[in-house]
Amino acid sequence: MASTKERIMDTTAGLFQRYGYTGTGLKQIVASANAPFGSIYHHFPNGKAQLGEEVIRHSGRMYRELFEAIFAAAPDVETATSDFFLGAAETLRQTDYADACPIETVALEVASTNEPLRKATAEVFESWIAAGTERFRAAGLSAHEARGLTIVFLSALEGAFVLCRASKTTEALEAAGAHMTAAVREAVT
Amino acid sequence: MASTKERIMDTTAGLFQRYGYTGTGLKQIVASANAPFGSIYHHFPNGKAQLGEEVIRHSGRMYRELFEAIFAAAPDVETATSDFFLGAAETLRQTDYADACPIETVALEVASTNEPLRKATAEVFESWIAAGTERFRAAGLSAHEARGLTIVFLSALEGAFVLCRASKTTEALEAAGAHMTAAVREAVT
Repeated sequence: MASTKERIMDTTAGLFQRYGYTGTGLKQIVASANAPFGSIYHHFPNGKAQLGEEVIRHSGRMYRELFEAIFAAAPDVETATSDFFLGAAETLRQTDYADACPIETVALEVASTNEPLRKATAEVFESWIAAGTERFRAAGLSAHEARGLTIVFLSALEGAFVLCRASKTTEALEAAGAHMTAAVREAVT
Repeated sequence: MASTKERIMDTTAGLFQRYGYTGTGLKQIVASANAPFGSIYHHFPNGKAQLGEEVIRHSGRMYRELFEAIFAAAPDVETATSDFFLGAAETLRQTDYADACPIETVALEVASTNEPLRKATAEVFESWIAAGTERFRAAGLSAHEARGLTIVFLSALEGAFVLCRASKTTEALEAAGAHMTAAVREAVT
């Protein structure tokens, strides 16, 4: 069974996706996590900012593991790219267009307002870029090409999430996924 | 000289970009716009939600006009694509990474929380997709190809904005811009 701290972090991650950082209150977190109010300050003495930073970093590791799992399961990077975008589209449909990138809303909210949280989001994105760069290097690209392709992959994904959540359709993830799959195929062959 | 209503809307648009919808308060708006508090309810009787919706639609029209102006000034759609991404990167640098897409932060905040505002963001994105589709159709693509290419263009742009604002670098806009410029060139030739 999950510890209280784990429950608080998982709950907060879900609330951040739906309501954003500013829109998620500590009372809402403890109510949703079925935890006593004092437990937040017990586990996160500096309050919401500390909880926010730990949730950003934790969500970042989980999403990187998902990326690694999809790439490890696919026969090649082209198939993995298609699988990743189509899997993201399926998850969006199943969650009424709520579960997209775990840190995207927060990243935009804090970019100009909270420097420690901005840095946490930047480090998470950089860790994902490193993971993708490694996969595309292993598929034969130079370090420079692999990093560039990963950044385009991640940009297309994050932007498609915005369009899909706004429109409540998966058209953008499908279009971006088809485009990136072709771009990866062209790059590695 | 701008009317009070125009000042309120312009101010709110800037605050939304930096602080998001939830993080922008009415007191902050009237203080920044140098307007009496009552003027908000005079011009927007339904308060923040009405102001928010009008600002989303107004910002959407302004950004579409920017898109049209850049495409009208360029000799071809390939050059226009490059100009658009590089211009966005320059604007980000000049504004300490605050002025990116005018509605992106708000779109993610309201996607699961405020249906009228979600619809407003969806309609703005659709209007931009229509504008891009028209440009790429005029360059010789089929309606289906032009819409798909525009959605990939907009996804790459919106996602690159997230990565650039988080990292306080323009690397993602440069990588996405170079990629999309090549993709547009390939599509129209």
